[in-house]
Amino acid sequence: MRAATIRDGRIEVVEHPDPEPQDGQLLVRVKAAGLNGADMMQLAGGYPAPPGVPQDIPGLEIAGEVLSCGRRAGRFEPGDRVMAIVAGGGQAELAVVHERTAMPVPEELDWTAAGGVPEAFTTAHDALFTQAGLMCGERLLVHGAAGGVGMAAVQLGTMTGARVTATVRNEQHRAQIAALGVHAISTEGFASEGEYDVILELVGAQNLSENLDALATGGRICIIGVGAGAKTEINLVKLMGKRGRIHGSTLRNRPIEEKAIAARLMEKMVLPGFASGDLSVPVTETFALADAPAAYERFLAGGKLGKIVLQT
Amino acid sequence: MRAATIRDGRIEVVEHPDPEPQDGQLLVRVKAAGLNGADMMQLAGGYPAPPGVPQDIPGLEIAGEVLSCGRRAGRFEPGDRVMAIVAGGGQAELAVVHERTAMPVPEELDWTAAGGVPEAFTTAHDALFTQAGLMCGERLLVHGAAGGVGMAAVQLGTMTGARVTATVRNEQHRAQIAALGVHAISTEGFASEGEYDVILELVGAQNLSENLDALATGGRICIIGVGAGAKTEINLVKLMGKRGRIHGSTLRNRPIEEKAIAARLMEKMVLPGFASGDLSVPVTETFALADAPAAYERFLAGGKLGKIVLQT
Repeated sequence: MRAATIRDGRIEVVEHPDPEPQDGQLLVRVKAAGLNGADMMQLAGGYPAPPGVPQDIPGLEIAGEVLSCGRRAGRFEPGDRVMAIVAGGGQAELAVVHERTAMPVPEELDWTAAGGVPEAFTTAHDALFTQAGLMCGERLLVHGAAGGVGMAAVQLGTMTGARVTATVRNEQHRAQIAALGVHAISTEGFASEGEYDVILELVGAQNLSENLDALATGGRICIIGVGAGAKTEINLVKLMGKRGRIHGSTLRNRPIEEKAIAARLMEKMVLPGFASGDLSVPVTETFALADAPAAYERFLAGGKLGKIVLQT
Repeated sequence: MRAATIRDGRIEVVEHPDPEPQDGQLLVRVKAAGLNGADMMQLAGGYPAPPGVPQDIPGLEIAGEVLSCGRRAGRFEPGDRVMAIVAGGGQAELAVVHERTAMPVPEELDWTAAGGVPEAFTTAHDALFTQAGLMCGERLLVHGAAGGVGMAAVQLGTMTGARVTATVRNEQHRAQIAALGVHAISTEGFASEGEYDVILELVGAQNLSENLDALATGGRICIIGVGAGAKTEINLVKLMGKRGRIHGSTLRNRPIEEKAIAARLMEKMVLPGFASGDLSVPVTETFALADAPAAYERFLAGGKLGKIVLQT
């Protein structure tokens, strides 16, 4: 099979041996695989793949057709459309995934859209609901709402009846995020806009102090992305006064049982939103697998709105 | 009535008008009232009392006898022994408290012991269980275990089947904390002693970086006291990698409904521990109300083990 491959800090598309499904795994003919910020970190050498997955093939989410099932894998059959987060190796023609972490692709979604769903929506759902316990009527602030996770988060927030504010740096993107039905503002001075019960941080540590100022009593800050900087000063008295919580999280290194639970929650709570029309997949640009280097270049150039997806 | 009173940054004991119980409140003849770090902050002008309580009478916990009940107060009768956290005004001969925030005094406890229970045990129980969800078998680290909250926390941790480690600066106190059946260590290099599922911070921000190093995956850090310093640098990537949470909290400013819930949890989960012998109240020194200035001096001198209680 061919796969996007990290060689000396660059992306190439080269031949690899076909993977084989182990007990409980599915062999998937990948049709689409989204790019994520974590792939860029891995490319830069800063985010090695965990043991047990290809070390040199990036890709944390796939959508594709089941080709064959390993022993004791009974949830899906060959020909089924599935999508899943994977710990690595997704940007390839073939990938293996444990059936408990795979979800059916809703019939409303084509391959490209499905390839942009697992990482963005699982990350957003896990942070907002499993961790922060976002509820109807609460005020949600999403920092960095123009990315894949951000656009998933504002839609999930709206779907659950939260009042959503989104910070977006790029002015043109701000209008497009506002079109999702949320209050889209610039990052500067966001703390003066009000109090928030949940703040989803997808940008960096530099927002932390203002996040604490803008936090409602009993509020939760979820730190999911810190690409713009990880270290900052914190005033713990502020956190105490707000009776607040700060959560940090990543999906990639979780054990399979936690990823399986996240997938079940996705099936129950998120996938119906694609059928109802409440949710759409924010794919902004697609590239053929052979053009993976260009796709990475586009991602690294920044300023994108939503997901970049490889068609494999 | 006489009450400890803040006058120009000093404690005096002076006459005040008797308080009157409003709807739902109890008038209590206070028999004992513990001192807390928050009283010292209030004395220094840094922690003003919330609206609706005496601004100049410190005291956040009381034990005493019900003298009379306001309208629609039906939980207790005159003569009943009660104890409660109050938002202020506790260090006096008389105090009013809403009946929903009051608890019966277990018959095993004398007045002095009861006066040292509400703040220390409610704070510790709320942080460890309501916030951090401490469970049987988990590893608990308590920083600053020689104080009232710290000694309550190590006992509650042991009672719930957690494996408890306590940091104690004073070497003599360390031996006495170890006698509670926990692993007592010096603060220096605590992070090398192992991983902790829950870390209760009662000292200050300077431990935060090492707390993150010592946190187990999915671990929770509860910030309850930062007397030794509130500001520090935080590396959010560490928090993300541990999938950790940082909680900050205070009891004093909570609305009455939250205090009432905390009191019900105390009745159900903590008070039986005094009857069973699992819990004891760590009172180290008592002072008569008239000697309140000396009690404050003793507290401010530091190096105490457990609670200082006024006998009123």
